[in-house]
Amino acid sequence: MSRRDHRQPDDLRPLKIKRHFTRAVPGSVLIQAGRTTVLCTASVAEQVPPWMAGQGRGWVTAEYGMLPGSTAPRKDRDRGGKIDGRTTEIQRLVGRSLRAVVDLDALGERTVTLDCDVLEADGGTRTLSITGAWIALVDALHACSRGLSPECSRGLSQFSRQDVAKMGLSPLSPLASKRVKLPLTDSVAAVSVGIVEGRPILDLDYREDSAAEVDMNVVMTGGGRFVEVQGTGEEATFTETELSAMLQLARQGITELTAAQQSALEKAWPL
Amino acid sequence: MSRRDHRQPDDLRPLKIKRHFTRAVPGSVLIQAGRTTVLCTASVAEQVPPWMAGQGRGWVTAEYGMLPGSTAPRKDRDRGGKIDGRTTEIQRLVGRSLRAVVDLDALGERTVTLDCDVLEADGGTRTLSITGAWIALVDALHACSRGLSPECSRGLSQFSRQDVAKMGLSPLSPLASKRVKLPLTDSVAAVSVGIVEGRPILDLDYREDSAAEVDMNVVMTGGGRFVEVQGTGEEATFTETELSAMLQLARQGITELTAAQQSALEKAWPL
Amino acid sequence: MSRRDHRQPDDLRPLKIKRHFTRAVPGSVLIQAGRTTVLCTASVAEQVPPWMAGQGRGWVTAEYGMLPGSTAPRKDRDRGGKIDGRTTEIQRLVGRSLRAVVDLDALGERTVTLDCDVLEADGGTRTLSITGAWIALVDALHACSRGLSPECSRGLSQFSRQDVAKMGLSPLSPLASKRVKLPLTDSVAAVSVGIVEGRPILDLDYREDSAAEVDMNVVMTGGGRFVEVQGTGEEATFTETELSAMLQLARQGITELTAAQQSALEKAWPL
Amino acid sequence: MSRRDHRQPDDLRPLKIKRHFTRAVPGSVLIQAGRTTVLCTASVAEQVPPWMAGQGRGWVTAEYGMLPGSTAPRKDRDRGGKIDGRTTEIQRLVGRSLRAVVDLDALGERTVTLDCDVLEADGGTRTLSITGAWIALVDALHACSRGLSPECSRGLSQFSRQDVAKMGLSPLSPLASKRVKLPLTDSVAAVSVGIVEGRPILDLDYREDSAAEVDMNVVMTGGGRFVEVQGTGEEATFTETELSAMLQLARQGITELTAAQQSALEKAWPL
Amino acid sequence: MSRRDHRQPDDLRPLKIKRHFTRAVPGSVLIQAGRTTVLCTASVAEQVPPWMAGQGRGWVTAEYGMLPGSTAPRKDRDRGGKIDGRTTEIQRLVGRSLRAVVDLDALGERTVTLDCDVLEADGGTRTLSITGAWIALVDALHACSRGLSPECSRGLSQFSRQDVAKMGLSPLSPLASKRVKLPLTDSVAAVSVGIVEGRPILDLDYREDSAAEVDMNVVMTGGGRFVEVQGTGEEATFTETELSAMLQLARQGITELTAAQQSALEKAWPL
Amino acid sequence: MSRRDHRQPDDLRPLKIKRHFTRAVPGSVLIQAGRTTVLCTASVAEQVPPWMAGQGRGWVTAEYGMLPGSTAPRKDRDRGGKIDGRTTEIQRLVGRSLRAVVDLDALGERTVTLDCDVLEADGGTRTLSITGAWIALVDALHACSRGLSPECSRGLSQFSRQDVAKMGLSPLSPLASKRVKLPLTDSVAAVSVGIVEGRPILDLDYREDSAAEVDMNVVMTGGGRFVEVQGTGEEATFTETELSAMLQLARQGITELTAAQQSALEKAWPL
Repeated sequence: MSRRDHRQPDDLRPLKIKRHFTRAVPGSVLIQAGRTTVLCTASVAEQVPPWMAGQGRGWVTAEYGMLPGSTAPRKDRDRGGKIDGRTTEIQRLVGRSLRAVVDLDALGERTVTLDCDVLEADGGTRTLSITGAWIALVDALHACSRGLSPECSRGLSQFSRQDVAKMGLSPLSPLASKRVKLPLTDSVAAVSVGIVEGRPILDLDYREDSAAEVDMNVVMTGGGRFVEVQGTGEEATFTETELSAMLQLARQGITELTAAQQSALEKAWPL
Repeated sequence: MSRRDHRQPDDLRPLKIKRHFTRAVPGSVLIQAGRTTVLCTASVAEQVPPWMAGQGRGWVTAEYGMLPGSTAPRKDRDRGGKIDGRTTEIQRLVGRSLRAVVDLDALGERTVTLDCDVLEADGGTRTLSITGAWIALVDALHACSRGLSPECSRGLSQFSRQDVAKMGLSPLSPLASKRVKLPLTDSVAAVSVGIVEGRPILDLDYREDSAAEVDMNVVMTGGGRFVEVQGTGEEATFTETELSAMLQLARQGITELTAAQQSALEKAWPL
Repeated sequence: MSRRDHRQPDDLRPLKIKRHFTRAVPGSVLIQAGRTTVLCTASVAEQVPPWMAGQGRGWVTAEYGMLPGSTAPRKDRDRGGKIDGRTTEIQRLVGRSLRAVVDLDALGERTVTLDCDVLEADGGTRTLSITGAWIALVDALHACSRGLSPECSRGLSQFSRQDVAKMGLSPLSPLASKRVKLPLTDSVAAVSVGIVEGRPILDLDYREDSAAEVDMNVVMTGGGRFVEVQGTGEEATFTETELSAMLQLARQGITELTAAQQSALEKAWPL
Repeated sequence: MSRRDHRQPDDLRPLKIKRHFTRAVPGSVLIQAGRTTVLCTASVAEQVPPWMAGQGRGWVTAEYGMLPGSTAPRKDRDRGGKIDGRTTEIQRLVGRSLRAVVDLDALGERTVTLDCDVLEADGGTRTLSITGAWIALVDALHACSRGLSPECSRGLSQFSRQDVAKMGLSPLSPLASKRVKLPLTDSVAAVSVGIVEGRPILDLDYREDSAAEVDMNVVMTGGGRFVEVQGTGEEATFTETELSAMLQLARQGITELTAAQQSALEKAWPL
Repeated sequence: MSRRDHRQPDDLRPLKIKRHFTRAVPGSVLIQAGRTTVLCTASVAEQVPPWMAGQGRGWVTAEYGMLPGSTAPRKDRDRGGKIDGRTTEIQRLVGRSLRAVVDLDALGERTVTLDCDVLEADGGTRTLSITGAWIALVDALHACSRGLSPECSRGLSQFSRQDVAKMGLSPLSPLASKRVKLPLTDSVAAVSVGIVEGRPILDLDYREDSAAEVDMNVVMTGGGRFVEVQGTGEEATFTETELSAMLQLARQGITELTAAQQSALEKAWPL
Repeated sequence: MSRRDHRQPDDLRPLKIKRHFTRAVPGSVLIQAGRTTVLCTASVAEQVPPWMAGQGRGWVTAEYGMLPGSTAPRKDRDRGGKIDGRTTEIQRLVGRSLRAVVDLDALGERTVTLDCDVLEADGGTRTLSITGAWIALVDALHACSRGLSPECSRGLSQFSRQDVAKMGLSPLSPLASKRVKLPLTDSVAAVSVGIVEGRPILDLDYREDSAAEVDMNVVMTGGGRFVEVQGTGEEATFTETELSAMLQLARQGITELTAAQQSALEKAWPL
């Protein structure tokens, strides 16, 4: 099978990242891989879930949703009081992946919520959500660490465009300031790999995903360690050799995604 | 009170409209008034609700949502199985307003669903949703009327960027073709008016809305007829004179919004 | 069209009001307009919603329901965990309308809940609910202001019929005593108007409502100020002239309803 | 203990029955025992639940609710998607009790739904619901059996007051006509008995019920056979002798209730 | 009708009781009557429901469930947010029955929850649940009274098999120790009786229950007093003579069940 | 760390398997690993989900639950209408794993539902569910394939103990008969591995699982192919070397579990 968009087996889809897409909350990243488009926002609240209260540690959690018009035929809204299984799996995965690179002790008793809302879905929405959410998280943590307001939860939203420009925040990376120490231990990104017509390929779009015999999502840190490995063959099973080939492709893709994240933040991170 | 953004009492906020923001469904409009941003998508399904089946008539309905990161503090997702009252009121209003200008008999036995999802909220989300949804509706109806596919519900999404360009669809307005007769009787747009510190003003932002003694939403057709008039004074009541002043401001604002809709569609409508 | 019950366009339906229909809670009014029958009860609790606690102000809220046997075919009970949109709109409207004439500061930190349950539905249930709920509210506030018990929420229910008679409460209006100052700024009543077969009419019954091109609900104070104006044309739109004619009919109807409320309370209010 | 309202241990509370309290559905009975007041309506639908379809048999079912203002403090509405256990028990009991005296084969493939809504609660709501629902059931079956309309589910509601008078329905009992054979095998009524301060008493009000060591509900036919016997001692247990005494009291009370039902229907039933 | 398993009308089904079937919670009893099998566990929590807090009294409650594979065809899981009526009735009955023999004052401010989960259903699950739950309750109360841990809620689960043996707990009855005073006033057990083909029989299996004209559940203490009597005839009614015959059979069955409970606990109780 | 129960890093916990634990449905397996105990039942229905109807293919699905008394403190029942995320993930995993070895075309248009209910939880419930469910599935398919009844969904339950013995089914393995061809392509089993205190270990109990830096579940076929690989490090990340070591341990454990499954079925499978 040749890939519909003329990609090689180890090619990622074209990637676009736009920070500060909206300004109500301190982190807001529009990320696009091919036609898959996700808006990742990061909100900060000065409290933690009841079961964590009083320990001085922070929490990072994620929610995931698909807008009804993100696919055709239209997808019903998640309003029946019953979140479907796929949604639950994805938001737990995104939350775990980000917590793996956050120093919750250093975060202090506050919660960062990453909302990943899919505006258009063409495969790989969960992995793209992780890659984009990490950037939104950096922006939100940076806004907090600059002490922009005691109620960091309302972040940058009180400022006019001009105010922000004067403070040098928007044109510069949040990481421009060397004095800021964010409660992060590494970056994190994710990508899908799979076996289609017997051949391992990287970053599957929806059509490829539907045809895949094996589907695997891999989450890794910028430093090259695994965070999650989830491989599944619903119609088929797979061998140890195939597993190795897929892991190799994923590692290569994540290296590229990490570079794109750092570029979006304008300075290599961590220094 | 002078308005924070230096607007006159009868000034609209700066308006931006971007069609085809996503491509999974045939209508997709990103509309922005000041900092309020709504993504309006229009999906088409070749069936109607059970209570309308077999009558040969179509249906137009709307849903409304706010992304969690559209406000600070973050808004919880609508997942508890209980849609809040405000959401219900808004989506019923949007649906009614659009149906007022659609010829449901001419539409045929199909349903157009308008999804209005607020990406950033700074007041006036319900009226902006109506103004944007009408444009998405035109795009969706046009895609159907061109007979692009027997399954219109999947609309333009099967076509590559190049395909669409070759068909002359994207660069030209859907209304460029004189031969197309859409099942519409007029255009529709909406705006808020209110009384703040005793003075009627047009197109309130969130801060003004919070301070308003009276809040009114007006929906009108391009032809100047009323579709909905909803005025309410929670902390105050209002006189007949004040009512007249607000209706006058609304009429003026809707004339400007109608022009912007037509400009976005590149040709005056209806001809 | 001549009206089925031989009413003139500007005639209200025959109105009956029965106070103290039940005695478990301090306000209980059975109100009937033609065949539409609503039981409005007012309960008082010595606390406010969490978001208002500690401010020293009170709260007034409303709920609305239709008994299953109030219409044919029978209406299912609201038990699915999902309140339908119409119900939500109505109970928000009733609550807002009553709050418009209550001095929440003077009420003190307590909540009055108005329950409007429709025993028989023949059009105009929401407006009749407002008209009846205001009377129930007066009775409940009066019971509280007389200091009948520290737990006003259990109001008159602890007293035997004889006890109440001895205290002169039941035969006399709650307003008989000049010394009582209730936390109210005005009375409030509501009525529907509409355009049927091109002609504006007052107080539509179900059959007229189904045939109406335009349907409008108007809420006004006894003093003649607007509280809410909600006009909507689902199948049609309407002109400024038609809007004026409908507002004029509504004003006339509300004047009559206000007189009926005062008569039911036996003394003009406010003095 | 002497009873608050000076009743003897074997006295029922004063009973009032008002038929045709509302007219949207064919059976509508307001029944009152002391201060407990229940509105029982009977609706007819020309279909049966899916699991009974096609067998030619009918179905009788019941629902029960308490209006929020029926007690103090106010009772929350049943809207959480979770019917409380007490409600479920009661509506199952009412349904079973009425089915015990209906010939479901003779009823034909239709469903009668009895809605018992408590307007004021002062003990004994479930037994009063049964007693009142039977009368509403008779009225509904009679309306159907007279063939007033092929859609019996809309029963008498299409007729004007005058029409009904001309047909001789309203002033006369539904049982006036000897030619009508209703699908009923007997009448049914119910009453509570209990042991308070060691002594068996009949027809407990709320205060007595709260103080009762043993609480028993008995449902019997007009012909004197048991339909249900439900005795429970939460704080206490009871002996065989006490059980006999309570059953004897119940039998006596039901004889009186049966007479009141027949009197309300104006003619003894069945003949 | 001769009974399928050759039982006489007054024969119980073969009964098996296995204590400590699982060890996570302090009471765990597998009880089997013919093919009906129920796992009854008793958990202890050091708190009471909010409405009881601070009174120094304890609470005993029960929940009931059927595993999906306990019947054929398979039963759907109770996950729809709506507990079916039968489940609610049963768990309320089990809770009331056990509370009738517990001294809640002596229990202290803690809650014992009895979970009765049906592994296989062949009639009589609710009565068998009561009989088994009482044994689980004794085991749980005994574990607490021995002061095995300040957090009794985790009961015996921290101990290895050997530890328990060394403490002499498992081989011996919890009642072996004379020094322990449990907060119980009596034992409790339950059985079903019914009328099948006109003849009263004891302990109905599913097939008999389906054929029964009258179905009655009786709960009694070891001391011979009634706790609950619930008799119902859905398709039929019953006479006073039939009621007496059923009560007599039930009394006999419960005497046998009480003996089996005591035997399972190895020592007569109470001494 | 030495393991609490003196196991070597590559030791499985003691395993017990009991087939035909209940008899209402054709497959019923009680499986125990150390103190983790799961009841796996397999029910068969002669229909498929709507989205598969008419294709002639079958479906295999799974549900998972934990009894409230399976852990301390007691776990609330899944009744809120909202299945928790962990439950959803597990039952999707179990369903996918079993479908990987079923020939859905050969199964025919019927559904097998595997219910895995945890009676006691001490770590590894999801992997033990898979291992046990496969045995229940074999029993259910065998019952169907023997054509025991046209309504296979009621399986073996109609037969008395003696009947089954006469047919030679119970004492013999369902696989005893060489003539039966089941719609299976392989066996499937699962086990957990993890890294605790830096060392890879096999088959973690609850205490080990809580202490694990990395937790991985591996599902493999009897033939040695991967079905699922799910590795996650919430508090930590892991290297490629650690991943290899864990996969090696898992492979060894699954070889042993496969042998135990075959032994329980008394004959090697597939032949």
